[in-house]
Amino acid sequence: MRKVKTLGLLGTGVIGGGWAARALHFGIDVIAADVKPEMEAWIRGAIANAEPALARLTFAPLPPKGTLSFTTDMRAMAQKADFIQENIPEQLELKQRMLAEVSRYAAPDVIIASSTSGLTPTDLQRDMVAPERFLVAHPFNPVYLLPLVELVGGAKTTPETIEAAATFLTYIGMHALRVRREVPGHLTDRLQEAIWREILHMVNEGVATTGELDESIIYGPGLRWAAMGTNMIYHLAGGESGMRHMLAQFGPALKWPWTKLEAPELTDKLIDSMVEGTRAQAAGRSIRELERLRDDYLVAIQQVLRQYDIGAGSTLKALEERLYKDAGTAAAAATSASGQALPRFDAVVRPEWADYNLHMTDFRYGQLFGDAMDAIYRQNGVDSEYRKAGRMFYTVESHVKHLGEAKVGEPLYVTTQVLGVDDKRLHVFHRLYRAGDDTLLATGEQMHLHVDTAAAKAAPMDAAVRVKLEALHQAHARLPQPVEAGKPVGSPKQR
Amino acid sequence: MRKVKTLGLLGTGVIGGGWAARALHFGIDVIAADVKPEMEAWIRGAIANAEPALARLTFAPLPPKGTLSFTTDMRAMAQKADFIQENIPEQLELKQRMLAEVSRYAAPDVIIASSTSGLTPTDLQRDMVAPERFLVAHPFNPVYLLPLVELVGGAKTTPETIEAAATFLTYIGMHALRVRREVPGHLTDRLQEAIWREILHMVNEGVATTGELDESIIYGPGLRWAAMGTNMIYHLAGGESGMRHMLAQFGPALKWPWTKLEAPELTDKLIDSMVEGTRAQAAGRSIRELERLRDDYLVAIQQVLRQYDIGAGSTLKALEERLYKDAGTAAAAATSASGQALPRFDAVVRPEWADYNLHMTDFRYGQLFGDAMDAIYRQNGVDSEYRKAGRMFYTVESHVKHLGEAKVGEPLYVTTQVLGVDDKRLHVFHRLYRAGDDTLLATGEQMHLHVDTAAAKAAPMDAAVRVKLEALHQAHARLPQPVEAGKPVGSPKQR
Repeated sequence: MRKVKTLGLLGTGVIGGGWAARALHFGIDVIAADVKPEMEAWIRGAIANAEPALARLTFAPLPPKGTLSFTTDMRAMAQKADFIQENIPEQLELKQRMLAEVSRYAAPDVIIASSTSGLTPTDLQRDMVAPERFLVAHPFNPVYLLPLVELVGGAKTTPETIEAAATFLTYIGMHALRVRREVPGHLTDRLQEAIWREILHMVNEGVATTGELDESIIYGPGLRWAAMGTNMIYHLAGGESGMRHMLAQFGPALKWPWTKLEAPELTDKLIDSMVEGTRAQAAGRSIRELERLRDDYLVAIQQVLRQYDIGAGSTLKALEERLYKDAGTAAAAATSASGQALPRFDAVVRPEWADYNLHMTDFRYGQLFGDAMDAIYRQNGVDSEYRKAGRMFYTVESHVKHLGEAKVGEPLYVTTQVLGVDDKRLHVFHRLYRAGDDTLLATGEQMHLHVDTAAAKAAPMDAAVRVKLEALHQAHARLPQPVEAGKPVGSPKQR
Repeated sequence: MRKVKTLGLLGTGVIGGGWAARALHFGIDVIAADVKPEMEAWIRGAIANAEPALARLTFAPLPPKGTLSFTTDMRAMAQKADFIQENIPEQLELKQRMLAEVSRYAAPDVIIASSTSGLTPTDLQRDMVAPERFLVAHPFNPVYLLPLVELVGGAKTTPETIEAAATFLTYIGMHALRVRREVPGHLTDRLQEAIWREILHMVNEGVATTGELDESIIYGPGLRWAAMGTNMIYHLAGGESGMRHMLAQFGPALKWPWTKLEAPELTDKLIDSMVEGTRAQAAGRSIRELERLRDDYLVAIQQVLRQYDIGAGSTLKALEERLYKDAGTAAAAATSASGQALPRFDAVVRPEWADYNLHMTDFRYGQLFGDAMDAIYRQNGVDSEYRKAGRMFYTVESHVKHLGEAKVGEPLYVTTQVLGVDDKRLHVFHRLYRAGDDTLLATGEQMHLHVDTAAAKAAPMDAAVRVKLEALHQAHARLPQPVEAGKPVGSPKQR
């Protein structure tokens, strides 16, 4: 098979546009063919829409972007392309006719693939010239972001075709899942379709709305499915004996009317297949180890979703608002007692904060100083209400000295000393400690500036906030002042 | 209903342990009852296992942890608890008997809830004293991390019971999904069970292994399901006319054998219900807007999974390794030409990097300087091979000055000037620019130290690396030196 420099597209809908955006981004030229000339503007629009998200997928160095051309002449496309991807409507006869036609124009070493959701390759390749270079390569929407592509060969497809297609598709960032047997719907859409039909039954019978059914997934199983499938998840739910225990415990439920779908008989052979399959997936990792991995990504994904205020992230965000509010009430009650000590912020090193070596990456020290500062601001009247009025503190300067390392899972805490405050500026000094032995791991000197966000310039802070911050400054002035402050990078250590 | 200070647990398996861990973490006392005394050690172990992940769920201020007690006497538990959660085996008669018994000991204003996966509340509350305070509260494994809990009332349950349960469960960080009609399996497990039975059929018929079927989800639909359900996803896939178009396009597929589950007839009434439901979910947001949200979280989740090297994150990681390798080859070929300019690293402001105001948060500047440094190290021989030999550069000091703001989606670039290099140290100066107009947004002066990671102390870098970094230093010495370097925090601006 030839090296792919140009991808030919037969048909240019949502799926064709997704293929184009992905290929171009990773340096492949694209020639798109559609009988309707107005689809040129459409596909250029689709590519432009995909670009902002694609540009953030990776910051690794990319080859120069590919160039897009458009034609209404399928023959011209077939003669220029090194790999042809068909994305026309899901009608067997139409696909058979078009694939046969394109196969007459494309050289025999050009792979021809179909994006079909559910038609089978043996049927599709029936009338083609050189049908051995044909396969199904079924992607998922949005094609430019989701890595999954199912590869299915027909009766006449050669293994070399599958491997060459996998090589190209991996090159443009996809995960090639080789489907070993032709069935309508391949693998993924059979599972999706089972859920979909169950949803239709439930809406049809008035049990739930589409929104309630979506909630039933995104706050629970959907979070797990982002990185482990049903089989691995059930393997973990079975405790130390995994899938075998799970089947014994929930086997009887297969007879219950929990879905409209009747289950197969749970024979010894089927039980063995399920157990052996999940054992292979575990690849020697214990249930405990897999649970830890599951828990780690479940926590990390919820942090991300919180930033987008969606699904489980909204739940977490609302919880935190309530916790800060409760803590504010508690803090106000205890205010006179706490004046002596520096404000303290507690955290734990998240696994996704580590780079090589399982040590916390340098910039995460800055994140913890920022989180500590955020808590202090909340406690002193700089909250969402304050910000809504168009006022905020910006960090204008930050000097971090790293004195020790923090490992994944270690509890840490930050103390913050106010070194100075004036109308517009707050000068602070953070110290990051390991909680176990109070070892100082880093210091951070920062200057914050109070701004009027509408005018986008420095402005005096509110009097009430100024008074509170000044009180902190007065209290902290009685404590020893940091010798590390006020020094440039590379100054000799003071300890 | 009374305020919940103590949660009583009837039964202590995986689900009971999960309830205990969640409640204790958010400040609720727990009294666990199990007839087997050995379950006390078991539940304490389960709570300890949950703790590391729970500790990372939020760094917002928490109330003091609750305390756990254990008893084999169900009556003692029922008399002390303010809310009772039942987690015994999934057998109707057993649950009916135990729930009836516990209801005789618990005061009538104590809510009693069942964790049942699929039994219906009308059946369960049949023999209870004060059955109006009973409901199903069905959680998902791991209960301490997944927010979803389905609330289902039986024929005798009062609406006040449902609302009081929702209030308590929200307090401990959960998302209460009110199920309006009793059906076996509630909502979530009907959908999960449909997938599960389809999986069993496919394994039974030898179409695919458990691992292949899990891959068919986690690299594609599973990523989407982390924050949008099937209905919303299909609404987006339908283009500008959303769900209505989707049903017209994929309606015929409901007759095809894509799953063993037969679909209901797609009547006008059902079509209207699906369309109205998804329109309500969209809540006035256009398809374009929802697509952008979907794309944003799909990119962000893949970044997280990359850190864990799992699922789609592994695909992304492998892609990036290949891109860096290809770029290395290209850079080596162009090496003599590139000596004049400072090394450049390109990136785009990710939406999850913004805090309030849609501006990039302060510590993300440090992240970009770190990413720029990482690229320079890779290009000069400090790669995974080098690190495997136990050598690395650590950042020991970092001084960032913020001169302007970066907005979400803006393309940025970092240049890096080598100010000095000796046996063990590398002194660099980064400048962060907005790509559109080359505005300088920040500077970052850093000192890096070369270390022997096994000995955990500074050590000379490899000669080959030293030569390359020295060559950069020589080339960069001919360029203007940064006036901002070598100054402490708060120095007057030089510009």
